[in-house]
Amino acid sequence: MILRTSPASPFGRKVKIAAAVLGLADRIEIVAADTNDPSDTLRTQNPLGKIPVLITDEGKALFDSPVIVAYLDHLAGGGRLVPAGPERFEILCLEALCDGLMDAALLQVYEGRFRSEDKRDANWLGYQSAKVDRVLRVLEDQADGLGDRIDAGTIALACALGYLDLRFSGTWRESHPRLVAFLERFAAAVPAFEKTRVAA
Amino acid sequence: MILRTSPASPFGRKVKIAAAVLGLADRIEIVAADTNDPSDTLRTQNPLGKIPVLITDEGKALFDSPVIVAYLDHLAGGGRLVPAGPERFEILCLEALCDGLMDAALLQVYEGRFRSEDKRDANWLGYQSAKVDRVLRVLEDQADGLGDRIDAGTIALACALGYLDLRFSGTWRESHPRLVAFLERFAAAVPAFEKTRVAA
Repeated sequence: MILRTSPASPFGRKVKIAAAVLGLADRIEIVAADTNDPSDTLRTQNPLGKIPVLITDEGKALFDSPVIVAYLDHLAGGGRLVPAGPERFEILCLEALCDGLMDAALLQVYEGRFRSEDKRDANWLGYQSAKVDRVLRVLEDQADGLGDRIDAGTIALACALGYLDLRFSGTWRESHPRLVAFLERFAAAVPAFEKTRVAA
Repeated sequence: MILRTSPASPFGRKVKIAAAVLGLADRIEIVAADTNDPSDTLRTQNPLGKIPVLITDEGKALFDSPVIVAYLDHLAGGGRLVPAGPERFEILCLEALCDGLMDAALLQVYEGRFRSEDKRDANWLGYQSAKVDRVLRVLEDQADGLGDRIDAGTIALACALGYLDLRFSGTWRESHPRLVAFLERFAAAVPAFEKTRVAA
């Protein structure tokens, strides 16, 4: 299989960690994708031009990251990162919550990357950063209860926090000690987390 | 169950149509949500402040729309809108593609709704509308092959096209005759599509 992604993508990191946890990393070749390059084959693989995209052994392009994680889980026998039992939808909802945090963080990064300074909007930035703050507050209350679970939800949470470390200087850490402890437990249990870290 | 959404939300429309197709509409009370009102309970149900959110009979809040659609499918016995067979991931990927189209359309709408005129950026609008164009081109080629399938993918496609009708005056129709034919077939087969239409 081929994974189109970029080193800093938090959504791509989810997939790399999922593959490692499932023992599938050896079967996946990572081919860098440039979302800003119109001539990159990425846009023929995913017309949205977004990463990550997984090209399966049958040559099919799959996205977005929750679909790829579920597919890899299926390839590995199923029910490991996305359990079949009653906790399934709770875990998928945690994944969606953390993906949404990443989206809100990414939109703030894009505000600086895509726009000249006079087109940047403090209200929009505040609207997105308030989403991040609310999600962190809720997750801080849940962090102890996550225990040592390694699933689609906790992988997304680790990648979301890692992205805040990368792009927002880790300022979340000071006021969210339980999430810091969660991330330490996660990193200790999942070596792929450190292996997929990129320097700021 | 309670569904928090707004009449014009294309993601909320997906859930309403899924519930109708699965025979679950009677079990769901729709309670309007205002994403712009900080005092709306929405932000305690989903800290991202996004709709739709489904409150289950057990009082749990579920999102985003693919998670809710999968949950309703599970409640209805499973395997109807999200098949368990090999076509599963193809259908989930079509859903993600159409959700991505809606996101790119919504970001263009937000550009006008959130920003004063001097903060709007033609480059950003063009970047998002190019995504919509590329997705439509790919889906136009696939439209005949979708046949009369009613699943999580085709429901998302119908809602994406409906949203372009609502917010972009249906300009997509002229150059995408196969998608027009798809939408006519879909609307004929799924009365909930017309029932959930809102006036522009």
